[in-house]
Amino acid sequence: MSEHALFNLSAGPVQATARTLRSLSKQIMYHNDPEFIRIFDETTEKLQRLFKTKGDVIIMQGEALLGLEAAAMSTIEPGDKCLNLVSGIYGHLYAYYIEAYGGRLVEVRTDYRKVIDPADVEKAFKEHPDIKVMSVCHSETPTGTLNPIQDICPIAKKHGAISIVDSVSAIGGTEVEVDEWGIDICCIGPQKNLASSPGLAPVSVSEAAWEKMRNKSRPVRYSYMSMLDFKEQWLCEKEKRGFPYTMFTNEVVALNDALDQVFEEGLDNMIARHKTAARIARAGAIGMGLELWPESEDICGTCATVVKAPEGVDEVQLRRLLYDKYRITISGGYRDMKGKVFRMGHMGTAAEPALVVMQIAMIEKSLHELGYPVKLGSGVGAALEVI
Amino acid sequence: MSEHALFNLSAGPVQATARTLRSLSKQIMYHNDPEFIRIFDETTEKLQRLFKTKGDVIIMQGEALLGLEAAAMSTIEPGDKCLNLVSGIYGHLYAYYIEAYGGRLVEVRTDYRKVIDPADVEKAFKEHPDIKVMSVCHSETPTGTLNPIQDICPIAKKHGAISIVDSVSAIGGTEVEVDEWGIDICCIGPQKNLASSPGLAPVSVSEAAWEKMRNKSRPVRYSYMSMLDFKEQWLCEKEKRGFPYTMFTNEVVALNDALDQVFEEGLDNMIARHKTAARIARAGAIGMGLELWPESEDICGTCATVVKAPEGVDEVQLRRLLYDKYRITISGGYRDMKGKVFRMGHMGTAAEPALVVMQIAMIEKSLHELGYPVKLGSGVGAALEVI
Amino acid sequence: MSEHALFNLSAGPVQATARTLRSLSKQIMYHNDPEFIRIFDETTEKLQRLFKTKGDVIIMQGEALLGLEAAAMSTIEPGDKCLNLVSGIYGHLYAYYIEAYGGRLVEVRTDYRKVIDPADVEKAFKEHPDIKVMSVCHSETPTGTLNPIQDICPIAKKHGAISIVDSVSAIGGTEVEVDEWGIDICCIGPQKNLASSPGLAPVSVSEAAWEKMRNKSRPVRYSYMSMLDFKEQWLCEKEKRGFPYTMFTNEVVALNDALDQVFEEGLDNMIARHKTAARIARAGAIGMGLELWPESEDICGTCATVVKAPEGVDEVQLRRLLYDKYRITISGGYRDMKGKVFRMGHMGTAAEPALVVMQIAMIEKSLHELGYPVKLGSGVGAALEVI
Amino acid sequence: MSEHALFNLSAGPVQATARTLRSLSKQIMYHNDPEFIRIFDETTEKLQRLFKTKGDVIIMQGEALLGLEAAAMSTIEPGDKCLNLVSGIYGHLYAYYIEAYGGRLVEVRTDYRKVIDPADVEKAFKEHPDIKVMSVCHSETPTGTLNPIQDICPIAKKHGAISIVDSVSAIGGTEVEVDEWGIDICCIGPQKNLASSPGLAPVSVSEAAWEKMRNKSRPVRYSYMSMLDFKEQWLCEKEKRGFPYTMFTNEVVALNDALDQVFEEGLDNMIARHKTAARIARAGAIGMGLELWPESEDICGTCATVVKAPEGVDEVQLRRLLYDKYRITISGGYRDMKGKVFRMGHMGTAAEPALVVMQIAMIEKSLHELGYPVKLGSGVGAALEVI
Repeated sequence: MSEHALFNLSAGPVQATARTLRSLSKQIMYHNDPEFIRIFDETTEKLQRLFKTKGDVIIMQGEALLGLEAAAMSTIEPGDKCLNLVSGIYGHLYAYYIEAYGGRLVEVRTDYRKVIDPADVEKAFKEHPDIKVMSVCHSETPTGTLNPIQDICPIAKKHGAISIVDSVSAIGGTEVEVDEWGIDICCIGPQKNLASSPGLAPVSVSEAAWEKMRNKSRPVRYSYMSMLDFKEQWLCEKEKRGFPYTMFTNEVVALNDALDQVFEEGLDNMIARHKTAARIARAGAIGMGLELWPESEDICGTCATVVKAPEGVDEVQLRRLLYDKYRITISGGYRDMKGKVFRMGHMGTAAEPALVVMQIAMIEKSLHELGYPVKLGSGVGAALEVI
Repeated sequence: MSEHALFNLSAGPVQATARTLRSLSKQIMYHNDPEFIRIFDETTEKLQRLFKTKGDVIIMQGEALLGLEAAAMSTIEPGDKCLNLVSGIYGHLYAYYIEAYGGRLVEVRTDYRKVIDPADVEKAFKEHPDIKVMSVCHSETPTGTLNPIQDICPIAKKHGAISIVDSVSAIGGTEVEVDEWGIDICCIGPQKNLASSPGLAPVSVSEAAWEKMRNKSRPVRYSYMSMLDFKEQWLCEKEKRGFPYTMFTNEVVALNDALDQVFEEGLDNMIARHKTAARIARAGAIGMGLELWPESEDICGTCATVVKAPEGVDEVQLRRLLYDKYRITISGGYRDMKGKVFRMGHMGTAAEPALVVMQIAMIEKSLHELGYPVKLGSGVGAALEVI
Repeated sequence: MSEHALFNLSAGPVQATARTLRSLSKQIMYHNDPEFIRIFDETTEKLQRLFKTKGDVIIMQGEALLGLEAAAMSTIEPGDKCLNLVSGIYGHLYAYYIEAYGGRLVEVRTDYRKVIDPADVEKAFKEHPDIKVMSVCHSETPTGTLNPIQDICPIAKKHGAISIVDSVSAIGGTEVEVDEWGIDICCIGPQKNLASSPGLAPVSVSEAAWEKMRNKSRPVRYSYMSMLDFKEQWLCEKEKRGFPYTMFTNEVVALNDALDQVFEEGLDNMIARHKTAARIARAGAIGMGLELWPESEDICGTCATVVKAPEGVDEVQLRRLLYDKYRITISGGYRDMKGKVFRMGHMGTAAEPALVVMQIAMIEKSLHELGYPVKLGSGVGAALEVI
Repeated sequence: MSEHALFNLSAGPVQATARTLRSLSKQIMYHNDPEFIRIFDETTEKLQRLFKTKGDVIIMQGEALLGLEAAAMSTIEPGDKCLNLVSGIYGHLYAYYIEAYGGRLVEVRTDYRKVIDPADVEKAFKEHPDIKVMSVCHSETPTGTLNPIQDICPIAKKHGAISIVDSVSAIGGTEVEVDEWGIDICCIGPQKNLASSPGLAPVSVSEAAWEKMRNKSRPVRYSYMSMLDFKEQWLCEKEKRGFPYTMFTNEVVALNDALDQVFEEGLDNMIARHKTAARIARAGAIGMGLELWPESEDICGTCATVVKAPEGVDEVQLRRLLYDKYRITISGGYRDMKGKVFRMGHMGTAAEPALVVMQIAMIEKSLHELGYPVKLGSGVGAALEVI
């Protein structure tokens, strides 16, 4: 009964390539084995290349949320005014961290079918010149939109605030330029467009961010969530360094291989592949008469396409039919979006024209079975047109 | 150049069985896939059986230290008096967590060649009847000793304190009886005697412990380190539950398989195998004229044997020779123990008579090469005698 | 650059399931290891179940052709009159073996768009009452047709001839009833509908066939192609038996697992799945205006659908485009069929509605790119209709 | 219960490296996939480098015996006088092939504790100047000896005979120089010193050998055992070539990787490693008072050490004890040698000092348990001395 789902076309984690799985299956290593240390260093360098930064990159061991929470815990001094930008669910949730670690919350919010307007950010900084930290979600997977980070982060920089960016589902699927855009802390996850495993939290950290962490009245050290531990115990003199805790070597080995695959394909080609996949998905959805959740195509994300569930169709039933009968997993609405939308994933291994087309065809068929009036072939035909 | 080390006979993580690696290499699953949820539930039940508890078990995603720190963060109310028992390095380090989360530290300490005397614990509780939390390391891998948890935890229970036990390197290699001994929070790691991966932190939690967490003035919720999140979001009604964050499905699948292997062997047989391996290791070490670090054999741990580096031999050189020439990894002294001892690992896959004998033989040979006067064959001969 | 082809939808070998690949990746065993012998015995029993025979099954180590040639070499006495039935390329080629091993060839032939008429077989036996051996290909993959073995083999039995049936691409995709239909030697391959590896040649052998082999003037023994070696050295008393040569244990382990998967799914369900896949493929091809090679749908095979290359389209270019741009492998015309047809594979792992639909969609798109006038979506639409 | 044997220290097949197993576990490819063809070509080139030949190398799909029998079938013209050199069991068995394919047998035989004296070969050629084919086993694994191929093959060349050499267990463990020594047909197996899988039969073929095959009155073509098929269908113009049968791609991929590992280590280093392992094994056996089967150490093979079973010890019991209790597989006596000897394997992955030492230790212990009077540690001590 195992591995019922042939195709995981969800909003992530997605299927790894067979090559990445082979790397993941290598024997578990002693974390102080010189071989592993070499691989860890290599991986770190490749991440710098991925982030487009000359600054530090650390690899925390845990799901992406670990990096995001650690960023808040490590940087926010109780009482700091923190600007949180909210255009979707992940943005909305970040406020919890800010408040849990003592920040005073200021928010810029927008309708979840739109994205943040940089002008509103500028305005917020003007109103609150004492903002110390700004947090924003780059790619909102639950709603399928992309915030204009390239325009937002420079504003924070200009106003002397530390920016924390959640690029978990953006990296590899759209441009991320840490140094160029002045992102102080950029958190990613290997399990989305990179198609690796969800147990590592790579984070880029600028000098300004380290400074902020060290200057806290009680800097976070000797903790599983401490970023400073990595800086001080690992990113120090090579002879003295040691990991703050036992690393799970296999995930690093797998990520190292996944990054090789990124650069063998070419990061730009990979991003282009995601954009193409998203374009095909949108054409297919529209072709079968459905409506996209985001207000316009130009703000759509590249890792998943969020589609409104048509009148009279229960998206839960749709997903169950696809899973049970066609062995395909897609995603439903997340939290507040439940019941309103379904999500077509096309990230990493799923960002492949043939797979997107297959997904459209089987959604078409399933909707038809559920009574939605669609001419079979219309979605796929429209999708094939734009390839 | 990869996989230079043929045999990882370190103090952990150790090599997984080929079967566990195959499980680890299964395709990454969507964490809400019904198949994964079934496997997760199965794994949880097997962990209860391993812990010998009818109480709750959660599986946090991170290295074992995550569970240990989360236990402190989740239970300690600022101002709580906390008794920390110190017979080795891990015990010593736990004080950091206690202080970081606002506890008032009380300690019972002993020489690192000895173990905690339950009478001293009793005395501490008498002197400090307001102790709210007691923490203790069960198996001190750095010094190779086993604390008498079976006698210590009932004392805490009797005095109404929550006990936090670090059984990371004890579980599977020696008896652990969570319900019988009244352990409130027991933290383990899959990467030691269970020979699985080091990215999960299974923790058993008693009702009393949940109560303590809920009764904190500011309970820890919506955090990567929150145990209550698991209780409230996952261990609730089946229809409503969801993981607090994206689980790395492969590690759970691997642990599930590793636990099957435990019960196929029989937990008692597995513990006996570790005890035998440790006995062989001690006989071999003594047979070649070396001295054990622990004061007596009856307090020795079963996962690693800690041996004093003989006069005139640099343990770092010894390990390098073993690694470079014989492709064997053993462990050195950890932190304060550096330079004083080396550690022969025999946990999990390494708790195999043939492998322990091999380790002894090659240590013998290496010490001989480094000028230590040993008759070749003496260690192995002594070891073979006790098999 | 490795693993460029995402989907191998060829006429076989096809992709194994991840589970079968994991079995294939188990450590190579010593072929006399008691564990392996147990697995070998289990596999043999499962093959009997697959063949629907109570008779012997042997597993020769080599590609399926090894079994087919060994059947000729082992049974044909020089001078024996042999009836070879030819409705396609594999039937045609069998004549070489008959002649190489000294048989006198008699043939019943038909147009490659049709199948053998049992009446013609009856007639041949009447004309040549001294026929000793009859050979026939069950599923002609190159032309996509299925011979009515159920009607043909009883005729050979009635006339006292040994029947040799090539069910390599039939088994698992259509009914095969060795005992019921009186097949004396049935040769199969694991690499087609069973989706296992192409290095083993399982063969069922009836008592009559063993008798024929033993009664040859010079029985074939001590040879890589000897079937009698297996009978006499392996299918003898358990205490005395030994393999005639070193078995590659991994392939047997993989086949054993693949057979478990067959019976977990249910052999009947599996056959139905192949029939459905073939029906979808035909509907899709016809839907986009193409013509099937076989004269009528009722004689079509279930493992591959053979389609005439449309006027003006080079099937080599079509396949190259699918491979290069869409990472899909389909098959071209084999030998004499080169340039005339292309073949859509839907066997084993590829016999999955979603994959057949995907294949149709991408063929549609590719034909369109090559100038073939097809309305995009027409093939897929027709295919979705019949699911 | 699976994978009971931890260490396969048999006379082969042996355990593959984890890396080779990963290659073996790659997805099964369509054999005409351009990627596979590239890998096949690469593998062929690496085999030429391994054989040290500029001549042709083919890779037949089947166990090593397939190549050996095919060599006889392809080259021997009925009536040809064939010189078979016999110093052990494999040499002895080759006579069957010679006679089966119509050769007239001439033999030079020696005691199985010795090796062939080239002077006797010279004498045989003088007595029978019409010898057309000479066959000899290079490394006789059953008796643990190495024939002086370097001196024998030039004699055949001088006398115009085609030489067929069985280097199955020699290649990679001792020097093999196909061109330098004038070997016409050299048959090897990947499953011995190369530690890859036993389902392929690589063979080097000289121009003279091709000539002999083509000049047969009835050349062997269109047969699973035809070497000419490979020459004419595969080693022809690149545009026209095709495999004579479906290749099992995974084994080629695995062998390709195993060969990379050979050259990364360095072929000379690899041979030296095998010689060292053999030296350690002999020292250990002698050190515990046992006697080697071969008459002198200088004729001993490097892949396995054949030791006389001591008086009063049943070698079957010894092996069972090692397997059941210590999870180690060694080999017993083969065919006529049954009961007289046991065999310590140290080929491929087992040619590792630590593993040879372990093997000695556990044999020592097991013999001791079976009542053989040995001072524990004596064998290992002697072995450690010679490392």
